[in-house]
Amino acid sequence: MKNYKITLIKGDGIGPEIIDEAVKVLDAVSSCCGFNLTYDEALMGGIAYDITGDPLPQETITKSLNSDAVLFGAIGGEKWDALPREKRPESGLLRFRKELGVYANLRPAVVYDELINASSLKPEIIKGVDIMVVRELIGGIYFGEPKGRTADKGWNTMVYTREEIVRIAHQAFRIAQKREKRVCSIDKANVLDVSQLWRDVVTEVSAEYPDVELTHMYVDNAAMQLVLNPKQFDVMLTGNIFGDILSDEASMLCGSIGLLPSASVGEKIGVYEPIHGSAPDIAGQGIANPIATIASASMMLRYALGEIEAADKIDYAIKKVLSEGYRTGDLAQFDAKEVCSTSEIGSIIANYI
Amino acid sequence: MKNYKITLIKGDGIGPEIIDEAVKVLDAVSSCCGFNLTYDEALMGGIAYDITGDPLPQETITKSLNSDAVLFGAIGGEKWDALPREKRPESGLLRFRKELGVYANLRPAVVYDELINASSLKPEIIKGVDIMVVRELIGGIYFGEPKGRTADKGWNTMVYTREEIVRIAHQAFRIAQKREKRVCSIDKANVLDVSQLWRDVVTEVSAEYPDVELTHMYVDNAAMQLVLNPKQFDVMLTGNIFGDILSDEASMLCGSIGLLPSASVGEKIGVYEPIHGSAPDIAGQGIANPIATIASASMMLRYALGEIEAADKIDYAIKKVLSEGYRTGDLAQFDAKEVCSTSEIGSIIANYI
Ligand SMILES: CC(C)[C@H](C(=O)O)[C@@H](O)C(=O)O
Ligand SMILES: CC(C)[C@H](C(=O)O)[C@@H](O)C(=O)O
Repeated sequence: MKNYKITLIKGDGIGPEIIDEAVKVLDAVSSCCGFNLTYDEALMGGIAYDITGDPLPQETITKSLNSDAVLFGAIGGEKWDALPREKRPESGLLRFRKELGVYANLRPAVVYDELINASSLKPEIIKGVDIMVVRELIGGIYFGEPKGRTADKGWNTMVYTREEIVRIAHQAFRIAQKREKRVCSIDKANVLDVSQLWRDVVTEVSAEYPDVELTHMYVDNAAMQLVLNPKQFDVMLTGNIFGDILSDEASMLCGSIGLLPSASVGEKIGVYEPIHGSAPDIAGQGIANPIATIASASMMLRYALGEIEAADKIDYAIKKVLSEGYRTGDLAQFDAKEVCSTSEIGSIIANYI
Repeated sequence: MKNYKITLIKGDGIGPEIIDEAVKVLDAVSSCCGFNLTYDEALMGGIAYDITGDPLPQETITKSLNSDAVLFGAIGGEKWDALPREKRPESGLLRFRKELGVYANLRPAVVYDELINASSLKPEIIKGVDIMVVRELIGGIYFGEPKGRTADKGWNTMVYTREEIVRIAHQAFRIAQKREKRVCSIDKANVLDVSQLWRDVVTEVSAEYPDVELTHMYVDNAAMQLVLNPKQFDVMLTGNIFGDILSDEASMLCGSIGLLPSASVGEKIGVYEPIHGSAPDIAGQGIANPIATIASASMMLRYALGEIEAADKIDYAIKKVLSEGYRTGDLAQFDAKEVCSTSEIGSIIANYI
């Protein structure tokens, strides 16, 4: 029987609760699909700082690199906001991404028909929306040097090298080939030099993918078009900060950030996590929506482990839970038949498998 | 009789047509409110490049600085996209902003009840939305050094000084005092050093405005909240690129960029312009919506010339045109009684005055 080693990083806030439900579902699906998962927990974020004094202990990096995939909950919380920058949970996360080399952040924004009324946009605008944001994750202004601040001045550098753009562009084009074969590359080439390079290099790489249509769009226009007519997009290719902004905006088309998974991949290992944060205000109450994390576990099976059948089973079970009207509190107002706790939703999904 | 000198910059594409309608309305309102306007045209953008070889001739700067206000149409078009960076219309615009020192870009996003169905968002989400985006306009990554590119690397610097942040923060707080007294400052302080300075300085300045409530929000969350619950915002205070993205997103809540004006102000002179672009595809056909430009003329009267009564008259006439169902083609599907040309809309508004 195949055996996979999964590193679990539960993190802070609602992280532990939602990861527990994903594990419940993974156990159900692995036993019925004939493979085995072993889990190893690792620390990151505020809890890692509290226990070890470091938001990203070296052991977490080592464990992650030695496993087949990482399933990640969420990190952060006001409790740690006053710490010096390098001790904050977010610093741990950024270092983690860099150390693992996960340069491509894949964020699907898919509207579930079952929740079409949950969006603040009109149903006819969002019905059928299926966007994949491919965001560069370990470059750009998040990591560029020089950076720093004094009492009177602050600066960061948005920098991209050709090599960084080439590899993320290939990711976007390869993903588009399995979808509707359209890539829209986002930049601000009418103002930024770094965006001009971005546009030139993406255009060059596109020559290797004659079956994929490439268009370019300025980031301000993209922010507008996502609201005006989101169905026009298939794959959106972006740098780090533009992708941070646009993928969050895109997620809102779907009505809830409690549903959307993400994958961060590179040459070595993938990290699978919900796009929402650690929501400390509702932590420990058993009311968090575990679906985004369960959907992330499905992405992990599909992309990291190649267990397609198991991933399909999870996706089907999620859809079924939604269509039958089981909802956590965040979605209670949208065609709910029964409002459920975090662990009830997890159990129902596990049962459907 | 009071006399004001207005510099008119018509620019490219639909620029000339929409400025002509604004002048029509200004003439009507000035004669009935007892002041006089003299206009002086100046060149900028593609047309300036075509005639003089420079998208921003020195004469345009001189004329503008010697007038009481600048009314601006729009610039740019594919025709000039292949020119070297410094010859492109956008470069002229950026230099113009810098030379005039208009550091504060004020972009209202107001939903007209009359056009509540024109938005892609549900009416209950946007009814009553009235946001003022206060965007820093002559600093940040648009102008920061070092910047440049080679064949293999591109870089720009997002830099802010304390002084730059202080003056834009004062603007935002003063504007908020005349509104709902709430400022939400947007940054990415969990990642960027420059944003940490931004947050610290805005917080300091807020001490001088105890009557205004200050909150902070990360830019990714703000992009989300604008779609989820835009009514939560009164004044949004942002840096240059974040404001570029968020104000375009906010404009979409209103359903059409054909309605929204903007003002760019500093110590010396103000520039008043529609937020939309030059729309070369519909130029010269007499179908462009002139309302954003007419509303910009109203902002000019109100803020640059202090002609409040005249500004009120224009705003009232715009509302009346919309409520009576006169629409340009872009809004024809939304409760239109009669579809009108650019100049018909201008004439009806002028008549109502
Ligand atoms: C927490 C923060 C550092 C992070 C980011 O900006 O990348 C988050 O917003 C995300 O998108 O994963
Ligand atoms: C045309 C472009 C340079 C400009 C900007 O980015 O500032 C425009 O998008 C705007 O917002 O006025």
